[in-house]
Amino acid sequence: MKNLLLASTSTLHKSDYLEYLSTELRQHFKNCKTILFIPYARPNGITHEEYTQKTALAFAKININVKGIHEFENPTLAIKEADGIFTGGGNTFLLVQQLYHHKIMTVLKETLEKGTPYLGTSAGSNIAGLSMQTTNDMPIIYPPSFQTLGLIPFNLNVHYLDKDEQSSHMGESRETRIKEFHEFNNFPVLGLKEGSWLEIKNGEINLKGGLTAKLFRKNHSPIEITSETELSFIQ
Amino acid sequence: MKNLLLASTSTLHKSDYLEYLSTELRQHFKNCKTILFIPYARPNGITHEEYTQKTALAFAKININVKGIHEFENPTLAIKEADGIFTGGGNTFLLVQQLYHHKIMTVLKETLEKGTPYLGTSAGSNIAGLSMQTTNDMPIIYPPSFQTLGLIPFNLNVHYLDKDEQSSHMGESRETRIKEFHEFNNFPVLGLKEGSWLEIKNGEINLKGGLTAKLFRKNHSPIEITSETELSFIQ
Repeated sequence: MKNLLLASTSTLHKSDYLEYLSTELRQHFKNCKTILFIPYARPNGITHEEYTQKTALAFAKININVKGIHEFENPTLAIKEADGIFTGGGNTFLLVQQLYHHKIMTVLKETLEKGTPYLGTSAGSNIAGLSMQTTNDMPIIYPPSFQTLGLIPFNLNVHYLDKDEQSSHMGESRETRIKEFHEFNNFPVLGLKEGSWLEIKNGEINLKGGLTAKLFRKNHSPIEITSETELSFIQ
Repeated sequence: MKNLLLASTSTLHKSDYLEYLSTELRQHFKNCKTILFIPYARPNGITHEEYTQKTALAFAKININVKGIHEFENPTLAIKEADGIFTGGGNTFLLVQQLYHHKIMTVLKETLEKGTPYLGTSAGSNIAGLSMQTTNDMPIIYPPSFQTLGLIPFNLNVHYLDKDEQSSHMGESRETRIKEFHEFNNFPVLGLKEGSWLEIKNGEINLKGGLTAKLFRKNHSPIEITSETELSFIQ
């Protein structure tokens, strides 16, 4: 049975990397001595090594080792044999392009469906949705497809922000962008604010973190969902 | 010789659609009785008809007729024979997908290189760059390529905004996104603020509108460029 934490962001303002999730992560990865880290999204363009090192430092605080997938000769095997897996944030186009390039999209899906504990943050949470089409990232590289893992029956919009009614900026709001998405796609989108995460465990999908999330469905007005709501009704 | 206006936005805050550009447009399209409108980017998901009607109302104020490309049986011929062309904003992925779908990317490029006056706003300006990879839009539809018209030797980032240093939001700033772009692509990116446009005329590229623009080049610190600067040095 799936066992996933999908967080909107890795880092809260004025807090260290992954700090706000440390209690959750201790519990989530309690049976893991070492977790496999997928650094492909390369935030700010940092290298796989730098990103893995940064992540290892954060996990050292809860006595878990981290090994980057780029360190393995066979990434498919690395995924199959991992005690736990974490995909970090960065650029979703790059992450998806790399997952296809290394031919591990399918094995990652199958492995996570069998129950290997998984953490995604930002781009690493986006890929758990049906497609990467509600990412906020720039298309810096052309992936062979926008389809992603489909571990949840909807898409996520991470780092979700309501429109700033005071702003004079005329660029599209997140809500407008998602409305445009629904002109061409039928599945729901959950706007997940920074500080929120989904816990997918025991066949349930629960909204965690104390904040509301916003649910967008085609031809419906968006609705605000409170924390601790079970979300299996979203189809 | 190319004759293009590439605007960051169609609309300024508390101003009507295209209003701030009306003096420019009167001059730019002075030899045009009717201009061809490309409504494919469908902002907010509005239809081609609605978008064309809205645009026709704005151009009526300067006594220019507007006809939508969707009204023509042969879009290639419509482009070749147009007195002037305007591509409006909306979703860049959709716009590019449609230009490829209707097989008019090449004819549009060739026609504009010969001198047909062109206006682009937002997504309609993005496509004048080398690629659409510095768009801010969501990938709501999968285009066959990210390559665009290449009418200027760099890319644009429209609706450009500097990072809000007061913000506690942890999503990537525009500058971070462009830095990530430069990990995989070599050509420069010009961040064009709302209220700015490029005038490409008589072999020159001039920054207009009174605001600064920000130039991002791979492995260089970004530089601020003042209005009325000639930009042919950007390669």
